[in-house]
Amino acid sequence: MSDLSSAPARVQGAVRIVGAGLLGASIGLALRAKGVDIILDDASPSQLRLAIDYGAGRAAEPTDDPSVVVICVPPDVTARVIEAELAAFPRAVVTDVASVKLEPYRALLERGVDLTRYIGSHPLAGRERGGAISARADLFLGRPWVICRDAETPAWALSQVEGLALDLGTIPMEMTPDEHDRFVALVSHTPQLVASLLAAQLQDAEEGAIQLAGQGLRDTVRIASSAPELWVQILSANHAEVLPVLEQLSTDLTSVISALRDPEVPGARRTIADTIAAGNTGVARLPGKHGQNRRFASIVVLLDDRPGQLGALFTELGEIGVNIEDLRLEHSPGANIGLAEVQVLPEVKQRTVDDLESRGWRIAEV
Amino acid sequence: MSDLSSAPARVQGAVRIVGAGLLGASIGLALRAKGVDIILDDASPSQLRLAIDYGAGRAAEPTDDPSVVVICVPPDVTARVIEAELAAFPRAVVTDVASVKLEPYRALLERGVDLTRYIGSHPLAGRERGGAISARADLFLGRPWVICRDAETPAWALSQVEGLALDLGTIPMEMTPDEHDRFVALVSHTPQLVASLLAAQLQDAEEGAIQLAGQGLRDTVRIASSAPELWVQILSANHAEVLPVLEQLSTDLTSVISALRDPEVPGARRTIADTIAAGNTGVARLPGKHGQNRRFASIVVLLDDRPGQLGALFTELGEIGVNIEDLRLEHSPGANIGLAEVQVLPEVKQRTVDDLESRGWRIAEV
Repeated sequence: MSDLSSAPARVQGAVRIVGAGLLGASIGLALRAKGVDIILDDASPSQLRLAIDYGAGRAAEPTDDPSVVVICVPPDVTARVIEAELAAFPRAVVTDVASVKLEPYRALLERGVDLTRYIGSHPLAGRERGGAISARADLFLGRPWVICRDAETPAWALSQVEGLALDLGTIPMEMTPDEHDRFVALVSHTPQLVASLLAAQLQDAEEGAIQLAGQGLRDTVRIASSAPELWVQILSANHAEVLPVLEQLSTDLTSVISALRDPEVPGARRTIADTIAAGNTGVARLPGKHGQNRRFASIVVLLDDRPGQLGALFTELGEIGVNIEDLRLEHSPGANIGLAEVQVLPEVKQRTVDDLESRGWRIAEV
Repeated sequence: MSDLSSAPARVQGAVRIVGAGLLGASIGLALRAKGVDIILDDASPSQLRLAIDYGAGRAAEPTDDPSVVVICVPPDVTARVIEAELAAFPRAVVTDVASVKLEPYRALLERGVDLTRYIGSHPLAGRERGGAISARADLFLGRPWVICRDAETPAWALSQVEGLALDLGTIPMEMTPDEHDRFVALVSHTPQLVASLLAAQLQDAEEGAIQLAGQGLRDTVRIASSAPELWVQILSANHAEVLPVLEQLSTDLTSVISALRDPEVPGARRTIADTIAAGNTGVARLPGKHGQNRRFASIVVLLDDRPGQLGALFTELGEIGVNIEDLRLEHSPGANIGLAEVQVLPEVKQRTVDDLESRGWRIAEV
């Protein structure tokens, strides 16, 4: 499957990771596969032991001299840990992965901390399950890695953090802390609150209503299972940027409520239709198919509806030497043809299509 | 794959389907596979031709004498078509699939229509793409089919509609029109509006924000791509039940906005945490894993991380004679083991697990 370890590491020297949860342990796993010396630290001894057992790195030693420190702790303590790590490792570039970038930066400035060796980061990745046990070396693959640096940032420090981001398979994107916080307020923090507010309405739902729930509702509220302790910190830290988005949403909601009080009033149906149409326009701005894993390229193979077709396809993909990252089947019992949508790494897509076609497979969409 | 056609049809006689879009054509496809004579009708000649070409049924003839009429037209015209079909086919039981059940029922009562032979239905199924071209015989498999009948409904009529629901692989659920409309307001109509309102905020998003959007946002707004013309009809027809849910949501949203104005005010962080926690409780009430297809049973097979393992698994599943309905792969490049989550029909799950284990495969979760 995805081979992140084939290229040598860009990041130089040892990498110290503070906070061995999902993000920290995932970074450790991915960099260790490239031969990087990973030093793990965590306030929780059991979390630390788990991450070490999982293969994400080794325990700290007094002689450690990391060239990069990656801070993967909760937002509320990020500023304090940045300050401590800058002091403890005076030759290292220090970065963090907190979901909010302006508040810790401001707090450090106010405390007069020299931030020359600090670069803020935010990898836009995660999963519903937390902790080292959920870590994955490919967690970051194809995801944006936001880098917030300023004019003072030395080239060597920037090069180390960019190297780290590339080693993890992410797409580094430079922006200011203000831009970052405004962007995530819209595409991450507000959606989290909206999903939670909607899911909260289900708390006391009648059992009959729950039985009618389908995939649409499940998708809409999926992220409502996120951890309250983490999200209180994120939302409080970024409240200034989340507020205007929520206030606009509240205004729009109030209009819809007015329209629904009496849909026969002239203009009411227009308000409802405009709301649904505005949602159409908004969702169309998101890249990629809904629900599709955008880290991979998609090949749709037509299959005759008889036993062994999938096995033959997989055997031939194995002969071609292509790893299948994911697969979806679509088939209607009435039809004579099924579709297998195979996900592969983007760089092998064209070769795979060519090889499959030369072996007689029919490709539906390329 | 899923074999809906193995059992004989429970529904007796010819079935007339009025409205040959996604739902109508899907019902036609599924019933034709059981040998039922399907008569298709549609106000749009091109939609009708497409559905007939697609194999969903045949064109109407003057001598038709259907025993069941299924009305699959937009909600706004459902009552009128029910009345016309009851008059045109005096021996048939007439049902409809509209997403709102009380308004058409009331409209027909007010017009004095004899509703003895009418039974309201609502199959909780659909897809983002509409039209006969998107029809699937297995669209309804495992989904609820709501049946609204009253004390006057004759047993033969109920038996026909229940037979139809079972022939399509659905789970028939009896409830009153009031219950139905209250339930779907919570689990379908409000989520649609909330997804649309959230997606609408993305309309004028800066490009940098769009680039940071991830799977969480995509899932949350997926259903916002639904058709405005249909949803105006649904929401207007069910406004009385949608309103109280939206008003509660608006109240909750206002509390969160107040808390976010200054998260350092005592109690503010508590309000935010309670909102996220309430969302946790709500989402936990939904059955099934998030995003998982609940129509099928899941088998997780451990795979060694070497080429050919998936091919071997599929070949052996073919030898066992098991059809794979869906498959998800999970693999971390750092780890030595991958997981293949195979979806099969529930009735073959145990046999498949036993056969795979006897052939030396390791099963992770059963």
